[in-house]
Amino acid sequence: MSPGEPGNKKTKVSIAKQLLTSTTAETGDKDYEGSELELKCINTIRALSIDQVQAQKSGHPGAPMGCAPMAHLLWNEIMSYSPSNPLWWNRDRFILSNGHASALQYTMLHLSGYKDVSMEDLKQFRKLGSKTPGHPESFVTEGIEVCTGPLGQGISNAVGIAMAECHLAAMFNKKDGFSKLIDHYTYVICGDGCLQEGVSSETSSLAGHLGLGKLVVLYDDNNITIDGSTDLSFTEDVTKRYDSYGWHTLTVQNVTSGLKELRMAISQAKREISRPTLIKIRTAIGFGSVLEGTAKIHGSPLTDDDLLSTKLSYGLDPEKSFYVDSAVQAAYEKSTVINEEKEQGWDVLFANYQKAYPNEAAELERRFTNKLPEGILEQLPTYEYGQEGSNKATRKFSQACLNAIGPILPELMGGSADLTPSNLTNFGVKDFQKMTPEGRYVRFGVREHGMCAISNGLYAHGGIRPYCATFLVFSGYAMGAIRMSALSQFPVLYIMTHDSIGVGEDGPTHQPIETLENLRSTPNLNVMRPADGNETSAAYQLALTSQKTPTVICCSRSTLPALEFSSKEKALKGAYVCWPSIEESEPELILVATGSEVSLCCEAAKKLSFKTRVVSMPCQEVFMKQPFKYQVSILPGNVPTLSVEASTYHGWHQFAHAQISINEFGRSGKGSEVLKMFGFTTENVVDKVKALMKFYDNKSVPHLRNRPFL
Amino acid sequence: MSPGEPGNKKTKVSIAKQLLTSTTAETGDKDYEGSELELKCINTIRALSIDQVQAQKSGHPGAPMGCAPMAHLLWNEIMSYSPSNPLWWNRDRFILSNGHASALQYTMLHLSGYKDVSMEDLKQFRKLGSKTPGHPESFVTEGIEVCTGPLGQGISNAVGIAMAECHLAAMFNKKDGFSKLIDHYTYVICGDGCLQEGVSSETSSLAGHLGLGKLVVLYDDNNITIDGSTDLSFTEDVTKRYDSYGWHTLTVQNVTSGLKELRMAISQAKREISRPTLIKIRTAIGFGSVLEGTAKIHGSPLTDDDLLSTKLSYGLDPEKSFYVDSAVQAAYEKSTVINEEKEQGWDVLFANYQKAYPNEAAELERRFTNKLPEGILEQLPTYEYGQEGSNKATRKFSQACLNAIGPILPELMGGSADLTPSNLTNFGVKDFQKMTPEGRYVRFGVREHGMCAISNGLYAHGGIRPYCATFLVFSGYAMGAIRMSALSQFPVLYIMTHDSIGVGEDGPTHQPIETLENLRSTPNLNVMRPADGNETSAAYQLALTSQKTPTVICCSRSTLPALEFSSKEKALKGAYVCWPSIEESEPELILVATGSEVSLCCEAAKKLSFKTRVVSMPCQEVFMKQPFKYQVSILPGNVPTLSVEASTYHGWHQFAHAQISINEFGRSGKGSEVLKMFGFTTENVVDKVKALMKFYDNKSVPHLRNRPFL
Repeated sequence: MSPGEPGNKKTKVSIAKQLLTSTTAETGDKDYEGSELELKCINTIRALSIDQVQAQKSGHPGAPMGCAPMAHLLWNEIMSYSPSNPLWWNRDRFILSNGHASALQYTMLHLSGYKDVSMEDLKQFRKLGSKTPGHPESFVTEGIEVCTGPLGQGISNAVGIAMAECHLAAMFNKKDGFSKLIDHYTYVICGDGCLQEGVSSETSSLAGHLGLGKLVVLYDDNNITIDGSTDLSFTEDVTKRYDSYGWHTLTVQNVTSGLKELRMAISQAKREISRPTLIKIRTAIGFGSVLEGTAKIHGSPLTDDDLLSTKLSYGLDPEKSFYVDSAVQAAYEKSTVINEEKEQGWDVLFANYQKAYPNEAAELERRFTNKLPEGILEQLPTYEYGQEGSNKATRKFSQACLNAIGPILPELMGGSADLTPSNLTNFGVKDFQKMTPEGRYVRFGVREHGMCAISNGLYAHGGIRPYCATFLVFSGYAMGAIRMSALSQFPVLYIMTHDSIGVGEDGPTHQPIETLENLRSTPNLNVMRPADGNETSAAYQLALTSQKTPTVICCSRSTLPALEFSSKEKALKGAYVCWPSIEESEPELILVATGSEVSLCCEAAKKLSFKTRVVSMPCQEVFMKQPFKYQVSILPGNVPTLSVEASTYHGWHQFAHAQISINEFGRSGKGSEVLKMFGFTTENVVDKVKALMKFYDNKSVPHLRNRPFL
Repeated sequence: MSPGEPGNKKTKVSIAKQLLTSTTAETGDKDYEGSELELKCINTIRALSIDQVQAQKSGHPGAPMGCAPMAHLLWNEIMSYSPSNPLWWNRDRFILSNGHASALQYTMLHLSGYKDVSMEDLKQFRKLGSKTPGHPESFVTEGIEVCTGPLGQGISNAVGIAMAECHLAAMFNKKDGFSKLIDHYTYVICGDGCLQEGVSSETSSLAGHLGLGKLVVLYDDNNITIDGSTDLSFTEDVTKRYDSYGWHTLTVQNVTSGLKELRMAISQAKREISRPTLIKIRTAIGFGSVLEGTAKIHGSPLTDDDLLSTKLSYGLDPEKSFYVDSAVQAAYEKSTVINEEKEQGWDVLFANYQKAYPNEAAELERRFTNKLPEGILEQLPTYEYGQEGSNKATRKFSQACLNAIGPILPELMGGSADLTPSNLTNFGVKDFQKMTPEGRYVRFGVREHGMCAISNGLYAHGGIRPYCATFLVFSGYAMGAIRMSALSQFPVLYIMTHDSIGVGEDGPTHQPIETLENLRSTPNLNVMRPADGNETSAAYQLALTSQKTPTVICCSRSTLPALEFSSKEKALKGAYVCWPSIEESEPELILVATGSEVSLCCEAAKKLSFKTRVVSMPCQEVFMKQPFKYQVSILPGNVPTLSVEASTYHGWHQFAHAQISINEFGRSGKGSEVLKMFGFTTENVVDKVKALMKFYDNKSVPHLRNRPFL
């Protein structure tokens, strides 16, 4: 049948309905070992998921059809959650790591009574502005914990979530009746794709090391990826791999003819609390379709014919779409009532906890509502010019900030990707390890991508302010997860040290060139490159006070001279005049720079005969948010302006008429020599300024900022 | 002893020398089971490595001290290579995946007689401009196969190298006496760090799947990372993990008291040709130092005291640095002679092969010298405006290019990260699989980072032109390896489809915003975003003719209308006037755009009353290399110019006075609706142009291109 032939279709449907009446027992549940209602629930989940994809003719029906049994079991029996309070602190967390199966998650949220996902919302699946976008987005839909879609991220976020639960339980649970205040599981559904991605290897290895026993991963082992059978590229022994990580692994051969085996496996998983569990579940992608078990059902809607026969095979009326019958409705209303009661029970527990442990309860509340402790910002160190210790590498100033705030900001949890002695990120707290879950320094190992994905999970859980660190150049390994921080509006703090060719001898593999620009061009990401101690404290203040934007603090490896006129307050405006004092106005020339190049420009300014202003611009993003009046007071736009940054020139055209920059890879050699080779010397700045001024002599200076629109 | 107290030192050295004379037998080789010469060779390797680090007071002595026994065995006994012809096609490949141990590799190159690494070069270790930079750089030093340093890359490159060997052997070896024309092993030394990185998990899983039996990895299991013991974060069972990938795994408990066990293991590894082998070798980082077995010896030079006692413990004269005694010299001269003879033997074999199989021999020569087949560029399709089939998605034009050149460019080998039906990268050749090594379509699996690292390896081997593909946004997963292509000057072809918010329903997780700019700001990387069929063919021509620069071709998911005045030749200049025909000059306004936005601008131009020029700029990098005269003929700079690209505005200031761009993440919805929402409509371009022209009415137009220097 061609699509769009309603007469033809009608006939088929009539025949189909007859078939349905006569053969339900045979087609629908002949071999099903569980209850008829259970099967009807599962098939309704399948049908609702298919209907969403059909409505927009876009999306991925295959995985929801295969995963419906596990989803039903989790949402109807296993998990504790509260649709009326989606952010209940002690809810079980559910992560759909194979985010392309989003129709499944929306179906479950709908059936379970989340207000954000009405039947109408399901009908709007993948439409612009809907609550049901193509992939789950935590900032759009209540009940979604993290954004998923890019494979491997969800399962890695889940590791962070389970770490947060483990740590908070160790910190806040009490022996006398409050041993389960923080006590929930983290459930993940993922497919082959997530397990092929390196990021999940990194985080799964760490999860095994940490013995995160309340993490339960349901692996949708359907043998199919987009290219075809997993035989094409993925023949490793997955459970053996997870065994090698120290996980508890189980295999479930059948979920299509009943949930008994899976129910038992999840029960075993829950009892094993010293190791995370991977349950490998054999499923059939596109279960019930004529394309069942093939790659063709992965990411395309069903044909009209197939839709018909599939719904028939489910024992459902193929004429009805977006339909939930009353028995299924009732089954979910029942589980929702039970779940809401669980939350109410917990609310009573917490009320008692508040009486018994008022300080801890208030602390927990503060942490889950993202409020900073009173007066913490004042603890960030500030420096007077000339003061002892005011000339340091900014990574050391970063360490000073961590030392100042770490002890009084107990939700600060994180660490480094095995570069602790270089990143200087340990402020003297205990390691978070299997035997010391109360610790909060995380040894991420050499796993940059996993580290950043875990940090997203730590934040997503609530109650934690995550930070993490590596060399700036290696943020390139982690862009997949850093992008997710920015997209998800998770204010993760990234501390990226060794931020330029000044790294020196390690050479071009370790010298960022394009990296600053890569980060700056990512939406919703603040990139701070401080020039001295005051600016570093400003960077920390920006990061701490940010509610929806992650911050990257880029720090130097080597000592930088303090700026004469810097202050935390000035730096918090993104850019400011750092030489001479702001009162001296009407410059003939402006030098604008960041980080290690600012003091260089101040030196050059002193050698120049022009009236020179030096602008320190620690954060382009913050400066761009200042009132236009402030912006032009700093960078008037029609004064010859030269930017100086040991990085690519890309992006600097908006702030300067000319750039001293690097547009090739770096070199191995002493940092000072490499910097010199690329022209980062007072002399070269002076020379280039002279060329710039000569060029504009008697010519009108093009205006930079005064644009018609941006 | 404080450093810099020579008197004190002298005394210690004198005492030490006495000790040395009296106790060599006890200290040097008491427990050593092999020959005295063997131990002396190994200790000389250790000493030379230490000396390099001491000379510059920078570098990583720990790993070379621990790995010296395996390096000696490989270079002195196992491997076939030819110092006088470092690029001998059939050499065994050696990859130091833990590139920070570079001093070890330079030592081995020096001892083996590579001219590029003289004793003087060793003394210049890590100095600016030396042949011995901080991490191995293949484009600097002969004998280095790939750049290493960023962990996990080297072992992943090695997988690509082993794939290349396997494929070329299947293609060129012949039964009658030429069964071993291409027949070499790929040896890797790597540490814990490389095995923690996700990229190595991806590539190791694929290596196991492919059964790359001639890949042998020596795992330096020293239990130490920068943060301290591997107990902190890396307690997985590594051999079990590699077992799960289908590798052959072996364990060697001791290499410090003799090479017998390791020799046997490597022999076993070589015999097992159906599976790659991982040999886990227990070593001691910083062997012989007082800091042996600690993280402190990882990345810092030894103290003077420790240097003294360490050399003594090696049975070497602590006063001598950069010293190779005659016996060691002779041992290496001997192995070099044997190795050179191996190459000479192979040269005879190849001469005979040339006679027996002149076509194949010529083909092999052509491929290893990176020459394209005659006339191949003419096979790239070109399109007349209005011709049937000239309106297509550029990913389909990309497919047409692959279909045109694939069959006649046998060195073209690659594939997609499990997005074949979307990337359209299969031109109908057989899969490269364990049972079909003659195939050249690679099923990379959902492993973007690994795919790109393998592609670097495929190129590094020689004889292969690699290409690989994923969605543009997921290049963020692979930036670590794409950067290495650019740095290493490997002209890998990246085909990145679904290149904008036009992706639509998949939503912001799948919509690149910052990605184009990230790629463009990477040095030595050509980023092509073609607008139609002719421009896509130009992109392929650029990629094919590139010898030292990788190319990213960014393709649309959806159909684009052909440009009226496009041509392959014009597009090869990076930017050109695409509307109206170039003869009409002196525009009042310029629209500059790439890819899907070019035809949009042409539409807008037709609705505008201003004399409008539309510039298509498929490649910023190539345009920037054109003569200045050409550049200003296209973009005069003082004509109001508006850029239109569905991407961040970063980078566009250099080409336009104003931008239509996207500076937030995208949305899920129909592609056309999402594009409209962000202003990518004819109407919005017309509106913005009017605003721009009004703004500059009676004002001087700032000049964009006429800069004093760049």
